[in-house]
Amino acid sequence: VTEPAARAPLVAVIGGGAGAAGEDVLAAAEAVGRGLAQAGAVLVTGGRGGVMEAACRGAASAGGVAVGLLPGDDVAEANRWVTIPLRTGLGEGRNVLVARAGDAVIAIGGEYGTLSELGFALKLGRPVIGLGTWGLVRPGGEADDRVFRASDPADAVARALELATAA
Amino acid sequence: VTEPAARAPLVAVIGGGAGAAGEDVLAAAEAVGRGLAQAGAVLVTGGRGGVMEAACRGAASAGGVAVGLLPGDDVAEANRWVTIPLRTGLGEGRNVLVARAGDAVIAIGGEYGTLSELGFALKLGRPVIGLGTWGLVRPGGEADDRVFRASDPADAVARALELATAA
Amino acid sequence: VTEPAARAPLVAVIGGGAGAAGEDVLAAAEAVGRGLAQAGAVLVTGGRGGVMEAACRGAASAGGVAVGLLPGDDVAEANRWVTIPLRTGLGEGRNVLVARAGDAVIAIGGEYGTLSELGFALKLGRPVIGLGTWGLVRPGGEADDRVFRASDPADAVARALELATAA
Amino acid sequence: VTEPAARAPLVAVIGGGAGAAGEDVLAAAEAVGRGLAQAGAVLVTGGRGGVMEAACRGAASAGGVAVGLLPGDDVAEANRWVTIPLRTGLGEGRNVLVARAGDAVIAIGGEYGTLSELGFALKLGRPVIGLGTWGLVRPGGEADDRVFRASDPADAVARALELATAA
Repeated sequence: VTEPAARAPLVAVIGGGAGAAGEDVLAAAEAVGRGLAQAGAVLVTGGRGGVMEAACRGAASAGGVAVGLLPGDDVAEANRWVTIPLRTGLGEGRNVLVARAGDAVIAIGGEYGTLSELGFALKLGRPVIGLGTWGLVRPGGEADDRVFRASDPADAVARALELATAA
Repeated sequence: VTEPAARAPLVAVIGGGAGAAGEDVLAAAEAVGRGLAQAGAVLVTGGRGGVMEAACRGAASAGGVAVGLLPGDDVAEANRWVTIPLRTGLGEGRNVLVARAGDAVIAIGGEYGTLSELGFALKLGRPVIGLGTWGLVRPGGEADDRVFRASDPADAVARALELATAA
Repeated sequence: VTEPAARAPLVAVIGGGAGAAGEDVLAAAEAVGRGLAQAGAVLVTGGRGGVMEAACRGAASAGGVAVGLLPGDDVAEANRWVTIPLRTGLGEGRNVLVARAGDAVIAIGGEYGTLSELGFALKLGRPVIGLGTWGLVRPGGEADDRVFRASDPADAVARALELATAA
Repeated sequence: VTEPAARAPLVAVIGGGAGAAGEDVLAAAEAVGRGLAQAGAVLVTGGRGGVMEAACRGAASAGGVAVGLLPGDDVAEANRWVTIPLRTGLGEGRNVLVARAGDAVIAIGGEYGTLSELGFALKLGRPVIGLGTWGLVRPGGEADDRVFRASDPADAVARALELATAA
């Protein structure tokens, strides 16, 4: 080997775990995972249930790579569609790794953990795409517009890939 | 020694670093730090400038203990009012330690880092008191009311101590 | 997709960074990386120079997957043979993630960072294979024998895969 | 307040948890904790049982401050002599915080976790004092002499304070 292959973009998908998301949110997450894999991106999630599992299942359906950054020390924590389960042992603190690992971050749904990851991604200057997620109001009362509000999963994927590449 | 002393409550104060906060925000942070120390609480912050430094200065003015969880590996990163500077080497990832360390968390001002810590504190179930900080709107459009909105520094301190003790 | 593919074993390779290792150590690391990839394992390293880079180059030469858990926030930190560069922002603290991520851990060479990761892997109960690495003497003076001492790179690879599967 | 007080030196004590250490090791840890507190140093440990608890009890007997960096999210994890219990949620990964927090590090006894922390402290360039702890043999067969081997608890304390101040 004399030259490495070009690196695939990394896109993080953040969202609530098992039981936290409704069917439409899960369907959106699966469509996002599929779209990312079809475009050749590597998916990064927290590796567990709910939005994370739906996104991984979508990626798997397109033959993609799905990295799961697990909270504990047991690969059995990973949902079955994770292709690379990485144990972190950091508990919920592994959320900041998920946000940081993405060249772009797609936030789906409205759990507090998602809010935390979304805030961390903004803090790091990552492009953040929201799909039915938190609205943010600055102390003075004006809406914060740093999160790109996607109209649907295809829009979220397109925007994430565009911004991940530009970053 | 046969019996240890009762443990002091730990209250985390989160807010923007140097340059990020206006004079009124810094004055509020200093008043919060002073009030916490006067009540015998241990202050926990990220140990650097801005809101963190103002809170530590307030704590010092009342002879209190101010723990600073520093991002890097150099105690010189700490503002001069930190009494116990703890190097974490976790960079911005140390923010989750600050939020987690508090029995209650007071969020002052409106930076993205503060948003992330606030979200993490909510995720962990910590009581969160806001003083001129982010408003949160759920995906469906309704305001989230888990953050207690304090009217002034004294109110923030009183509520933090009440909720820290109840936790 | 109705059934996910079987998961590939994850093997962590730990060892000194750029400038810390001699030519023979680097050649051993490259042979280990190649052998792991040929066997279908996913390589996990800290993603930077020296032993890490040599192992990744070896994996790349066999078309393998090389995860790099980077200390900072810039994918340019990764050596060019890393296929999945994951930014952690944890600095040297990311070493514990490398050790934890492996189903088995191969330690090559004798830096203090390697010692720390090796100790952490032992603490976690991971199988640890040593190739020209630290010897450990218990407080009472007897040698600790928990590290399997491999005779050469092929032996290290064979033993790592055997123990990773059994774990 | 116009000038902050001089900062107390921080000394980390690392060693095995409950059940891992014999009576003589625990007695040594208690003497070390007491000596550090008598000298005005702040003790930092992982906050749990065994060597950690013995050191904290020693510090408490001299009215000292004992910071405990806890693995989980519950202050009840702390031994009763910890005066400032800080929840990290990082599990065993919090060990690197303990090693990093010290201006000097005293390693007592011979568990794998202690080995990991000791290696990490050496990696960071911290002064490390050993009291009945691991011996380290370089790949080439020679003994590593970077750990100062203390003859007894008083010697360990004296050396730690001397090296912490010089650092």
